[in-house]
Amino acid sequence: MSRDIEALQEKLREFASERDWGQFHSPRNLAASLSIEAAEVLEHFQWLTDEQSRQLSDEKRAAVSTELADVFLYLVQLADSLRVDLIAASSAKIEENGRKYPVDRSRGAATKYTDL
Amino acid sequence: MSRDIEALQEKLREFASERDWGQFHSPRNLAASLSIEAAEVLEHFQWLTDEQSRQLSDEKRAAVSTELADVFLYLVQLADSLRVDLIAASSAKIEENGRKYPVDRSRGAATKYTDL
Amino acid sequence: MSRDIEALQEKLREFASERDWGQFHSPRNLAASLSIEAAEVLEHFQWLTDEQSRQLSDEKRAAVSTELADVFLYLVQLADSLRVDLIAASSAKIEENGRKYPVDRSRGAATKYTDL
Amino acid sequence: MSRDIEALQEKLREFASERDWGQFHSPRNLAASLSIEAAEVLEHFQWLTDEQSRQLSDEKRAAVSTELADVFLYLVQLADSLRVDLIAASSAKIEENGRKYPVDRSRGAATKYTDL
Repeated sequence: MSRDIEALQEKLREFASERDWGQFHSPRNLAASLSIEAAEVLEHFQWLTDEQSRQLSDEKRAAVSTELADVFLYLVQLADSLRVDLIAASSAKIEENGRKYPVDRSRGAATKYTDL
Repeated sequence: MSRDIEALQEKLREFASERDWGQFHSPRNLAASLSIEAAEVLEHFQWLTDEQSRQLSDEKRAAVSTELADVFLYLVQLADSLRVDLIAASSAKIEENGRKYPVDRSRGAATKYTDL
Repeated sequence: MSRDIEALQEKLREFASERDWGQFHSPRNLAASLSIEAAEVLEHFQWLTDEQSRQLSDEKRAAVSTELADVFLYLVQLADSLRVDLIAASSAKIEENGRKYPVDRSRGAATKYTDL
Repeated sequence: MSRDIEALQEKLREFASERDWGQFHSPRNLAASLSIEAAEVLEHFQWLTDEQSRQLSDEKRAAVSTELADVFLYLVQLADSLRVDLIAASSAKIEENGRKYPVDRSRGAATKYTDL
């Protein structure tokens, strides 16, 4: 478990509790909020080419940064309410992906593992 | 900056580099992937009531946990490619939310700050 | 094929062509835009209970209506660019759903067909 | 109001009623479902370049067509439950867009109207 993430979760629990927001923060609502905020990230890239998206201005980068924070805040709250250890779950997923996408068969290809 | 997140980003950079996937990982593609994975989280809650979403079975919780990992992996990769410090951006966002949603005016209400 | 939808597609083709927007309207960009607009619909329901969502004020209903139009406009443009007949594809899908969800086994249950 | 869309809505009302699914089809659940299906459309374009997305194989086009139908089915159900006329709302939106994006100022530019 990451201490930084736990500290964030602790702060968010307090923030919600002071405002009596626990009633709104069902996992289902948090999941909807996660999707909404992820779409706001995507909106910044809506009409950009891949190349343009690699060269954001500092102003744009700052705007995206705020949206990434929103995604992260809902993600850690949802993980907290489901008692999921994000770092452990992610490390497990990377290992699984390593098995699904062996280096020699997936190099340079954006092919789903089911089609490899 | 969180050491756990940095370690994850380092691992993911290596994972992508071994497979020559940098070409696919434009910020724009990562943002689309983030949205797609967030929707897969939401799918687990699609027909649940708020109450049911608070009482997931262990099996369901494990399934959601894997999807949360997918969201997290794209989030940290996108943050990495835009050089965004997720912990710092999130702490700044919590402070901003504290100003937008003063305890006395937002207690028990799911009202957007623009309508408070 | 629906004449109303075709008329809409014709109008949108002209709209884009006058503005030389064809270059931006790749199926991929239209698909991203569809997702972004769908999330804006969802945002209106973010903190509502099921019950509250069934009793929107007229003002709220008008706001949602505009977002539904945005979703529809991207949907018909995407269908147009992929030469998909939305009405035919939807009728086929309803028939398929009828087979996947037989009345006797799916009554009153929000169970995915794979688990029926 | 479009007769084709009304016919679809009528069919879907019957489909849900036979299965006693009205209880699940709150506007809020339909909005979540719309977002989930829109993300499934986007998933087909996840790693494609703009150019590749303009040249889908017939097989891929058929797969996307099914997902577009899913989006459309939730969209017309949501519109039905909120008593929104999709064609009228969309025509109004096109007119509004015409005012926001005058031909001479928006030609060849993917600039949001607030920045024109």
